[in-house]
Amino acid sequence: MFQSKSRVAGVLMSIGAVTAALALNDPTPAIAQDREIVRASFNEDGSVSQPENWRTWIFVGAPLTPNALNGGEAAFPEYHNVYIEPSAFEHWRRTGEWADGTQFAKELVLLRQADDCEPDPDNGSCAQTSGQGFFQGEFAGLELKVKDATRFADEPGNWAYFSFGHQPEPYAETATAFPADACNACHEANAADDFVFTQYYPVLRAAKP
Amino acid sequence: MFQSKSRVAGVLMSIGAVTAALALNDPTPAIAQDREIVRASFNEDGSVSQPENWRTWIFVGAPLTPNALNGGEAAFPEYHNVYIEPSAFEHWRRTGEWADGTQFAKELVLLRQADDCEPDPDNGSCAQTSGQGFFQGEFAGLELKVKDATRFADEPGNWAYFSFGHQPEPYAETATAFPADACNACHEANAADDFVFTQYYPVLRAAKP
Repeated sequence: MFQSKSRVAGVLMSIGAVTAALALNDPTPAIAQDREIVRASFNEDGSVSQPENWRTWIFVGAPLTPNALNGGEAAFPEYHNVYIEPSAFEHWRRTGEWADGTQFAKELVLLRQADDCEPDPDNGSCAQTSGQGFFQGEFAGLELKVKDATRFADEPGNWAYFSFGHQPEPYAETATAFPADACNACHEANAADDFVFTQYYPVLRAAKP
Repeated sequence: MFQSKSRVAGVLMSIGAVTAALALNDPTPAIAQDREIVRASFNEDGSVSQPENWRTWIFVGAPLTPNALNGGEAAFPEYHNVYIEPSAFEHWRRTGEWADGTQFAKELVLLRQADDCEPDPDNGSCAQTSGQGFFQGEFAGLELKVKDATRFADEPGNWAYFSFGHQPEPYAETATAFPADACNACHEANAADDFVFTQYYPVLRAAKP
């Protein structure tokens, strides 16, 4: 009986440690082993399913290209909330590399407009108690970027890009990959770290070993 | 022996479910019971210690008040990356209320400046491949907001506000609470949900039951 209690306690302690590491994404080097990378869910027709819980992934940065500064039609309107899937973030934090299976989500958010927040037509900002600036309004789209050396063996960097729609929720349930040149060419030419725009993502720069 | 194996298996299964919920912040209503709220770490002198791993908390929104739009001196320069501690987010998602112990972190980030990103003096934006806009540069400060009915019984809403400095890292290790009027008066008058500016945080609006 003592032995079985002890085993239960041992299980509890080890699972507890894993739980703490998973929940807090503990940055200490004590996590020596790779967690399994959580992969995107692909379907038989090659499409990818909408990820689950991307808003609880690790936020890395929020570029903002207001429509007002881009002739009324920004390519990505307007805030781009960018997240990395947590197990891929762990891998990056430990190795400075994007694991096979790494997922980034980019959710688009329009600027807030309200009676107390009339946008300046020159730049889209409005005045709030914290100052003149920009504030997130309504969700307006979801994109996903996946690195997979098997599925996307022919894509530069093995990255593929998907859109679940530039529209309010609900977003599409599945998405097919963009043609390579639509996204990857720009990422290849301009992104600082293997097709990822870490120059805009201070959280990733700070975590890089 | 069967019984003890069965107990171990039972522990594994139940802990496994908790682990999954903690790791993914599973939004399903299957999480019936409250997780214990993870509380801020206070010291004997009443100061609070810098939180751990706030960049892995749940991102809720990123207001931006560029210095260029605020006479060169925004009150909060410039991006404000706002996070809620995950157990408090779970509580909010289930109840629409801020649990006692809720923590919000606000990290300040300056606009990116680089040879390829010369700020427009009128608004602080620059031109990048995704368009004319704003991009996160270097970290510039850390603040914390804590709800605690015991420690801050006399504060409106039981909220207290702390700054670990408006400066590059390293931030201060500890911080003492601001006088109530310094922050809370503005939050009380203008914030949409019990002293929290959910009007700027689409992630919180979407998660509210």
